Amino acid sequence: MAIDLSYAPEVTALVEKTEAFIREVVLPIEDEHGGDITAAGGDTLRVQMQKAAKDAGVFAPHAPVEYGGHGLNMTDRAPVFEAAGYSLFGPTALNIGAPDEGNVHMLAHIASPEQKERFLAPLAHGDVRSAFAMTEPSPGAGSDPSALTTRAEKVPGGWKINGHKYFITGADGAGFFIIFARTSGVPGDRGGATMFLTPADAEGLTVGRHIDTLDRAMIGGHCEVFFEDLFVPDSGVLGEVDQGFAYAQVRLGPARMTHVMRWLGAARRGHDVAVAHVAQRDGFGGKLGDLGMVQKMIADNEIDIAATRALLTRACWELDQGGHASNSTSIAKTYAAEAIFRIVDNSVQMCGGLGVSGDLPLARLSREVRPFRVYDGPSEVHRWAIAKRVVGAAKKAAREAGA
Amino acid sequence: MAIDLSYAPEVTALVEKTEAFIREVVLPIEDEHGGDITAAGGDTLRVQMQKAAKDAGVFAPHAPVEYGGHGLNMTDRAPVFEAAGYSLFGPTALNIGAPDEGNVHMLAHIASPEQKERFLAPLAHGDVRSAFAMTEPSPGAGSDPSALTTRAEKVPGGWKINGHKYFITGADGAGFFIIFARTSGVPGDRGGATMFLTPADAEGLTVGRHIDTLDRAMIGGHCEVFFEDLFVPDSGVLGEVDQGFAYAQVRLGPARMTHVMRWLGAARRGHDVAVAHVAQRDGFGGKLGDLGMVQKMIADNEIDIAATRALLTRACWELDQGGHASNSTSIAKTYAAEAIFRIVDNSVQMCGGLGVSGDLPLARLSREVRPFRVYDGPSEVHRWAIAKRVVGAAKKAAREAGA
Amino acid sequence: MAIDLSYAPEVTALVEKTEAFIREVVLPIEDEHGGDITAAGGDTLRVQMQKAAKDAGVFAPHAPVEYGGHGLNMTDRAPVFEAAGYSLFGPTALNIGAPDEGNVHMLAHIASPEQKERFLAPLAHGDVRSAFAMTEPSPGAGSDPSALTTRAEKVPGGWKINGHKYFITGADGAGFFIIFARTSGVPGDRGGATMFLTPADAEGLTVGRHIDTLDRAMIGGHCEVFFEDLFVPDSGVLGEVDQGFAYAQVRLGPARMTHVMRWLGAARRGHDVAVAHVAQRDGFGGKLGDLGMVQKMIADNEIDIAATRALLTRACWELDQGGHASNSTSIAKTYAAEAIFRIVDNSVQMCGGLGVSGDLPLARLSREVRPFRVYDGPSEVHRWAIAKRVVGAAKKAAREAGA
Amino acid sequence: MAIDLSYAPEVTALVEKTEAFIREVVLPIEDEHGGDITAAGGDTLRVQMQKAAKDAGVFAPHAPVEYGGHGLNMTDRAPVFEAAGYSLFGPTALNIGAPDEGNVHMLAHIASPEQKERFLAPLAHGDVRSAFAMTEPSPGAGSDPSALTTRAEKVPGGWKINGHKYFITGADGAGFFIIFARTSGVPGDRGGATMFLTPADAEGLTVGRHIDTLDRAMIGGHCEVFFEDLFVPDSGVLGEVDQGFAYAQVRLGPARMTHVMRWLGAARRGHDVAVAHVAQRDGFGGKLGDLGMVQKMIADNEIDIAATRALLTRACWELDQGGHASNSTSIAKTYAAEAIFRIVDNSVQMCGGLGVSGDLPLARLSREVRPFRVYDGPSEVHRWAIAKRVVGAAKKAAREAGA
Repeated sequence: MAIDLSYAPEVTALVEKTEAFIREVVLPIEDEHGGDITAAGGDTLRVQMQKAAKDAGVFAPHAPVEYGGHGLNMTDRAPVFEAAGYSLFGPTALNIGAPDEGNVHMLAHIASPEQKERFLAPLAHGDVRSAFAMTEPSPGAGSDPSALTTRAEKVPGGWKINGHKYFITGADGAGFFIIFARTSGVPGDRGGATMFLTPADAEGLTVGRHIDTLDRAMIGGHCEVFFEDLFVPDSGVLGEVDQGFAYAQVRLGPARMTHVMRWLGAARRGHDVAVAHVAQRDGFGGKLGDLGMVQKMIADNEIDIAATRALLTRACWELDQGGHASNSTSIAKTYAAEAIFRIVDNSVQMCGGLGVSGDLPLARLSREVRPFRVYDGPSEVHRWAIAKRVVGAAKKAAREAGA
Repeated sequence: MAIDLSYAPEVTALVEKTEAFIREVVLPIEDEHGGDITAAGGDTLRVQMQKAAKDAGVFAPHAPVEYGGHGLNMTDRAPVFEAAGYSLFGPTALNIGAPDEGNVHMLAHIASPEQKERFLAPLAHGDVRSAFAMTEPSPGAGSDPSALTTRAEKVPGGWKINGHKYFITGADGAGFFIIFARTSGVPGDRGGATMFLTPADAEGLTVGRHIDTLDRAMIGGHCEVFFEDLFVPDSGVLGEVDQGFAYAQVRLGPARMTHVMRWLGAARRGHDVAVAHVAQRDGFGGKLGDLGMVQKMIADNEIDIAATRALLTRACWELDQGGHASNSTSIAKTYAAEAIFRIVDNSVQMCGGLGVSGDLPLARLSREVRPFRVYDGPSEVHRWAIAKRVVGAAKKAAREAGA
Repeated sequence: MAIDLSYAPEVTALVEKTEAFIREVVLPIEDEHGGDITAAGGDTLRVQMQKAAKDAGVFAPHAPVEYGGHGLNMTDRAPVFEAAGYSLFGPTALNIGAPDEGNVHMLAHIASPEQKERFLAPLAHGDVRSAFAMTEPSPGAGSDPSALTTRAEKVPGGWKINGHKYFITGADGAGFFIIFARTSGVPGDRGGATMFLTPADAEGLTVGRHIDTLDRAMIGGHCEVFFEDLFVPDSGVLGEVDQGFAYAQVRLGPARMTHVMRWLGAARRGHDVAVAHVAQRDGFGGKLGDLGMVQKMIADNEIDIAATRALLTRACWELDQGGHASNSTSIAKTYAAEAIFRIVDNSVQMCGGLGVSGDLPLARLSREVRPFRVYDGPSEVHRWAIAKRVVGAAKKAAREAGA
Repeated sequence: MAIDLSYAPEVTALVEKTEAFIREVVLPIEDEHGGDITAAGGDTLRVQMQKAAKDAGVFAPHAPVEYGGHGLNMTDRAPVFEAAGYSLFGPTALNIGAPDEGNVHMLAHIASPEQKERFLAPLAHGDVRSAFAMTEPSPGAGSDPSALTTRAEKVPGGWKINGHKYFITGADGAGFFIIFARTSGVPGDRGGATMFLTPADAEGLTVGRHIDTLDRAMIGGHCEVFFEDLFVPDSGVLGEVDQGFAYAQVRLGPARMTHVMRWLGAARRGHDVAVAHVAQRDGFGGKLGDLGMVQKMIADNEIDIAATRALLTRACWELDQGGHASNSTSIAKTYAAEAIFRIVDNSVQMCGGLGVSGDLPLARLSREVRPFRVYDGPSEVHRWAIAKRVVGAAKKAAREAGA
């Protein structure tokens, strides 16, 4: 019981091995293909990189040990995931990309032994990918999940699901889906949702178009998905019926934080590329990196990196103590998403024309990180939630003082 | 002699005609092709759109009347170019895209009658496109033009040019080039440059790869260009030998401002799309557009649009009075480039997941406008120039007070 | 009918005379007394400075010619008021401080000939000061004027007023008050207000404590004012009964803009002091003013000054065309209040320890300008109003398109 | 060896006792006197509050146990000092204000047993105050300490000191001074400084005027100090001759961090006052605290508070491991100074007119916290130092890669 900010030696060792693996194996592939993972080979590339990660001893840092992972808690995942995120392809190589990583986390907490055997084991080993089907087109579940419209009706032996999802990351090529559907109540209710597990090839499940988004590095794209009388047997219910919103909380906080870890790595790469550039490039009578306005951008980046890491450590530690850490993960996510955007934007600016071109990785990094200010809750929704807690507490205190 | 901010009726009429033309003819084409002008047809599309613009009476608002244009001064160009820029393809349709528009401006001021006949006339009419070959890879001419390394050597009857340019907008498919080359002095000297006119098919001129940049809407790309013993006859010297840096000033201020006009139009479109979205989209118990944090983004955009326009009007008016207006164009360009970026970024954010997707034009607008903080002088270089003037004047004042 | 940004020669001449008067007469007094106008002599000082201003031919640039002023319209006031605002005591010296200047403006538009004779004439000549009693403590009239609670009841021959006002600028020592009171309806109604004119020594009018605010340069302070059965005869009704909210609009836009003019002058002084400091002060191997991070602050200030002026010109010109210019004055006020704050804050920062001390005027300027982000409508209220217009228009357009 | 962010129970208990003491004893005194410690009683008040702190068991959390303190390391000081800083008078009450707290820290590390007995013991017990005389007027030691001009000449039995210091916090009423003077080399050398201990009543030491700064809560003011042939015996040399710059490093990092702790407490109070205000105040159809733009300010404050604490914890932990932690204390100080300013500024804005008045503590908090962006190194100097390290490392890496 005293502040300690040091990592165990085995964590530090894993970070170093991961850094080396990314630098030597993964970054060259990313750079060769301009960061477009589909163009670079998609699942074929994924299998090949994951094989290399296993050989290097850095595969699946998050997965339970019994499923071949390193079993790291959230706090220890932070530096390892950041090291992986240094390449846009790194998370795929280590099997810690979204949404698979969050799905492993949730299945390990909630799934039945049979479900773990059937879905978690192959996912943790990289034998299949998965999707998490929650977001819906307006007016369905979006920033406000209670608007959920996809419905599951009870039928003999199971459930029949109908609905329309979109922005479903990794859907194209996923081996199975976790589906968020309403089993009671109406859109607007903050209860009545259930999670279902289904193989991707089940009848009635169709993966539609890839939505053309700014980012290109997530395997399987962001897709539309349609359910038409999709049958899921009772054994496919994840956890208990009508408890979906509560389970979503289990996934939510950690998933936010692993996003931060990965994107922080990407931002750090952008910063490193820019610093290396300005340290060597001549201009205005010296090196660009010695000019005050450039120094300001560099220092701002360093501060943003340090603050992101510090907030992340805090939120992860709270998660590891149990509980949802809703406030500290909202704070860390909001700060990080904006800081990461600033870091990459400054890095682009430091490199001038090259910064907006494909000759450096910065232009693609700027495309990749922008959506994070929207994904996993727009900054505005997090700020609203943060403020509501504080103002609510102040109202309560005033009522009590007045009573 | 009194402040007047009204436009002449014929200017207002041209603005309205341009708005209608863009809305009815050009925007549908842009949207159909996701803003990629090469994919949309390149020069074939250009010719077709320019024909339509001529029919609509909105072609070439900037070109001298004797070359088929409307002959507007800088101040009056502002609202017309903004209206054209509302579509990313609009400037091409009206023949006022970079670099052609700036080249028309410069040739009208500097070229000899013969050069006007041969180069300006077809350019103004849209029969050919052109390129302005100034920027060089490091350590050549970039933010600091005096670093110019491309050399022109005097030979009998003309000049022999050798050098390497890059980020040459519109080079692929251009009918002729204006080349900036050193005719005396050494890199670092703030004199000794000359401008040359040459047909694109001259021997010794090679257009290399398109540099893969964030923006996609400029026809002819941003290319590398190589000169190997390129011969330009004496008749191809634009203006006088060794006066290139002075002539560049003639082009510089106006070109900065027309960039601002066009991008401001693009930013306004992004803002309009976002406002239309949040005015209709439900969420959190009402329309998104009635939420305070969304209202803040909308109001910030309105302020940025108004301030950009106001600074632009000021700088254009100064240019129309004669003189370089270096300070006011630096101020307007720097403010505008950052404001336009903020406007589009806020617009993306207001639309959430759709904002980062191809389902709305915002994602592509965010890619298109980012480079403007770098092109035509990075914000940092403009700030440096602005501050140098002020501090220099303060030092002078102190010396005089002390004397 | 064409854009013109030049001032008439007589305006330019008045600006120059005003600048000289401020520099030679007023600034030395301000600096001697550390900007505290009460400590410097209050109304005694005011009378003395106004005498000097009359002698210098720069007194009352805004007042109608028949009342001894220069009769400038809003557009022409801008550079003159800015020149006056260069000293915190300048507006008092020229009789153009708040609230007198706005009261002159309103009385000139609305008052009856008798009221003009009795109230406007001495005010315009500087024989008396005045107050505008609108703001009330919560839950009364504040950012939302319709919450007005002060009531005027009809009695034979006049009205009986009861209420409590606060933040009434200049109340202590004012010769007369313009009182905003409800004559019909209830708090929350957007109508039913009337304006009343009353001498300050009327029975039932009490000026309470000075509220201790960050700013110190406004003569007569910001006071609490109480009305207890204050009788105002029918001849004291300004304009028509129940039209107070409409008349307030007449005062509102121009008053916002003259605030901007004056504070912009103050901000410019801060900037000039800081630039002079860094142009001379050695550090880090040269002059501070040649360091990039300092150059950035200087350039940002220059941009903010230019944008404030440009938005101000726009809004003033719209006011001069007639109409309320609600949107453009909201935009100009919001931008200006924040820009002026940034300019002074940067200026403080450039001067380091001296910047936060009384050895330079910057610390006091930082105190003086902060409230402007609150006074005359907090930035948040203006942003809300700006956004509401835009979103309202978008909703209407959607309805019409759908109809 | 694993991340732990929990405090030992005795630290948590001391935090709670400190919070209660500040709330019940100190805040009422601060509020009664508007935060002006001189007006509130100066050293008389200090003695009285320190007596109460001793009685409450919260006195001197930082001082070595043998001198009556709690002997907390840097990490554990953070929450206690923050709790003390919640009142502007809190640090004085607990004897942890600047510069005494930093002087205790440094004397505990460097002083000889005799010096500890004579100077440290009474300082730790609150029997005297002290001053740290380093900063000089331009062109002397300021942001760049190597410019040190105050000279100490060797004379028989001791040293004779001549020089001029300013911004010397707490000088008026201090019992002794620690003087930073040059014993070898010339201004500009990064060596040759020595620290001297002298009683305040020594002949040749004169405390001049209080510099009139924005802040008012530091006892003893910020003064000019003059040394004219001040004799300090050899026993007054603190540590070794010519090692002053190295010793200054011992004081520097921790002093930066304790500043952050205290000001963070002050910022938190501002935030709490504002939140309590908007949670109760009606406007625009509800409570102000439920409006989106207000929620944004609240959430931004929460994020800034969390990030400041997280960076502070990191830097303190590094200091506790030994070493100077120059980079992490620069990062934490720079972020914190700007965040604290933003927090208070947002809090002012949330309270509108009351926010800029003396009716709430916000106006004075805004004055108090502004100088922290300058004191202990302006943000610009810290950013310069942060960037220099990074760019220097990049240059080195490039050289090695090239070798």
